[in-house]
Amino acid sequence: TLAAPAIAQAQPTIKWRLASSFPKSLDTIYQAAEDMAKRVKAATEGRFDIRVFAAGEIVPAFGTLDAVQNGTVEITHTASYYFVGKNKAFAFDTALPFGLTARQQNAWTYFGGGMALLRDFYREFNVVNFPGGNTGVQMGGWFRKEIKSLEDIKGLKMRIPGIGGEVFAKLGAVPQAIPGGDIYPSLEKGTIDAAEWVGPYDDEKLGFFKVAPNYYYPGWWEPGPNLSFLINAKEWEKLPQAYKEIVEAACAEANVRMMAEYDAKNPRALASLLSKGAKLHAYPRDVMDAAFKAAQEIYADESGKNPAFKKLYEPWNRFRNESYQWAKVAEQGFATFAFNQKV
Amino acid sequence: TLAAPAIAQAQPTIKWRLASSFPKSLDTIYQAAEDMAKRVKAATEGRFDIRVFAAGEIVPAFGTLDAVQNGTVEITHTASYYFVGKNKAFAFDTALPFGLTARQQNAWTYFGGGMALLRDFYREFNVVNFPGGNTGVQMGGWFRKEIKSLEDIKGLKMRIPGIGGEVFAKLGAVPQAIPGGDIYPSLEKGTIDAAEWVGPYDDEKLGFFKVAPNYYYPGWWEPGPNLSFLINAKEWEKLPQAYKEIVEAACAEANVRMMAEYDAKNPRALASLLSKGAKLHAYPRDVMDAAFKAAQEIYADESGKNPAFKKLYEPWNRFRNESYQWAKVAEQGFATFAFNQKV
Repeated sequence: TLAAPAIAQAQPTIKWRLASSFPKSLDTIYQAAEDMAKRVKAATEGRFDIRVFAAGEIVPAFGTLDAVQNGTVEITHTASYYFVGKNKAFAFDTALPFGLTARQQNAWTYFGGGMALLRDFYREFNVVNFPGGNTGVQMGGWFRKEIKSLEDIKGLKMRIPGIGGEVFAKLGAVPQAIPGGDIYPSLEKGTIDAAEWVGPYDDEKLGFFKVAPNYYYPGWWEPGPNLSFLINAKEWEKLPQAYKEIVEAACAEANVRMMAEYDAKNPRALASLLSKGAKLHAYPRDVMDAAFKAAQEIYADESGKNPAFKKLYEPWNRFRNESYQWAKVAEQGFATFAFNQKV
Repeated sequence: TLAAPAIAQAQPTIKWRLASSFPKSLDTIYQAAEDMAKRVKAATEGRFDIRVFAAGEIVPAFGTLDAVQNGTVEITHTASYYFVGKNKAFAFDTALPFGLTARQQNAWTYFGGGMALLRDFYREFNVVNFPGGNTGVQMGGWFRKEIKSLEDIKGLKMRIPGIGGEVFAKLGAVPQAIPGGDIYPSLEKGTIDAAEWVGPYDDEKLGFFKVAPNYYYPGWWEPGPNLSFLINAKEWEKLPQAYKEIVEAACAEANVRMMAEYDAKNPRALASLLSKGAKLHAYPRDVMDAAFKAAQEIYADESGKNPAFKKLYEPWNRFRNESYQWAKVAEQGFATFAFNQKV
């Protein structure tokens, strides 16, 4: 007998809308959602079509979690720490001051028990989460005047959102919440004294070096911020298993590629910024020490009053401690020697 | 009219064999190929079935490139620097002494021009390459006696293959090529004085701490070794586009997950090794300096006589230089402070 030609019920046609929390101008981050959607579509022969909308096109940047939760859209690409106003525990899915680096964040999430804890937390929001990108350690922001010691932080008006802003407040600064597009004129007029954004590649485009040339590192409040794909749990469950597999792989691919893209773009952007007059400074040691202490106080305080935070913080902190002990051996042994060589 | 039910020609059933260069005992590395194959199979509803064989089951560990090239198997999961005997340029796909870290290797390959150069190089081997995992900076090996200065390297019989071994030879050591399973008895009997393997998680299982307790860091000859999936180019071209998309995403997923798994396992393994008597040492500065100098001599020498090496080396070296300049700012600014905190 001849074998019958392989005829099968095709997989269903599915259309999703993805509301990004990012503008197209943050092209490295925004593009990760487009790339993920493109991969899913091509891998399903066009059947599973995720259309990506930039922040504000159909949902405001900070409204995307609500939109996923209530089913207005099926999926968002976001930084979960935008939602710390709902619960500070969202920060574990993105970054915490003096927390995990990009690699450590992946280690914790994929293999260190983090994913199970995050899935538990997200369940009440009707959301399933997948890591979907990272910027690496961000820069520490642009300052109109040089910061020589902790004294110079006091009274400083700085654009810095979230828990990083709370740490700066404990140091005597006055944190400001200002949208990206308003930072430049505010720095120029002196309405604010300092502002943090992302890193060399994204910062250069906004031109801060012209009005606040003192460029500080590191961005200790964001050592490895993870961007997340958050999916409505009911829509996720409706997917055929093969589509779930493809989405999960495509999100992981977006994760590794975004970090790689930033690592390829930032070196030249930093060199360019320095050639245009940006002045590179390390945060003074007393600022680092005071910020570290303030961050641990915030964690202790929040753990005392927020059970969801405490449930994530304790295992996360053990993982952080173990990871730091290991990272300072082989990785740091190499980095401190090699990065200072002329090659 | 009623819409016709979606009936389509199903995608073809394809069976591939993957010859891994790794034994099952290197479980983190070996498993990455199994996970990739599992993802591909599930994403294609079982139609694209890649069966994974450990080193030696159907192809010897170091014969997998030949097997892919001549079509004995369709795909291997390997460390391309195993093939530096054919051409030293293979090392750019894995690691070179004082080369790129795991993140820098991804940056160079995915976004720094590396992939196009590697694909050009692999074309003559009838191979298409995809990054598929990383161990991070490896450890610098186990020594029976403490190494106090460069003098102590002279005459040392050390198990270390590849270009790392060539560097040690320039320093006066006598590099040895010994399979993993023979290292322990050779160290125990004193047939060799030292041996490098991988990192804490893999090293602990082989028990070296019992016979050569001096554990050195960093493994400067492997700062970010990338494992690769190498696919026969004709078999790759035969795949339906949707299968190609799924394979590419699944390889990228294997890449990010292997690094994460090592970063989750190594911290506890290091702590365990120290509790069992391993003695942690940094390589002396004069050893690092001499090794760095020797490595650059090898690169200059090889560039002078191997056009394929030179073609990769020059852009790679520019990328390395730019990456080092950036890495010592935000990442190192954070790491040198944070990793030394008690958290």
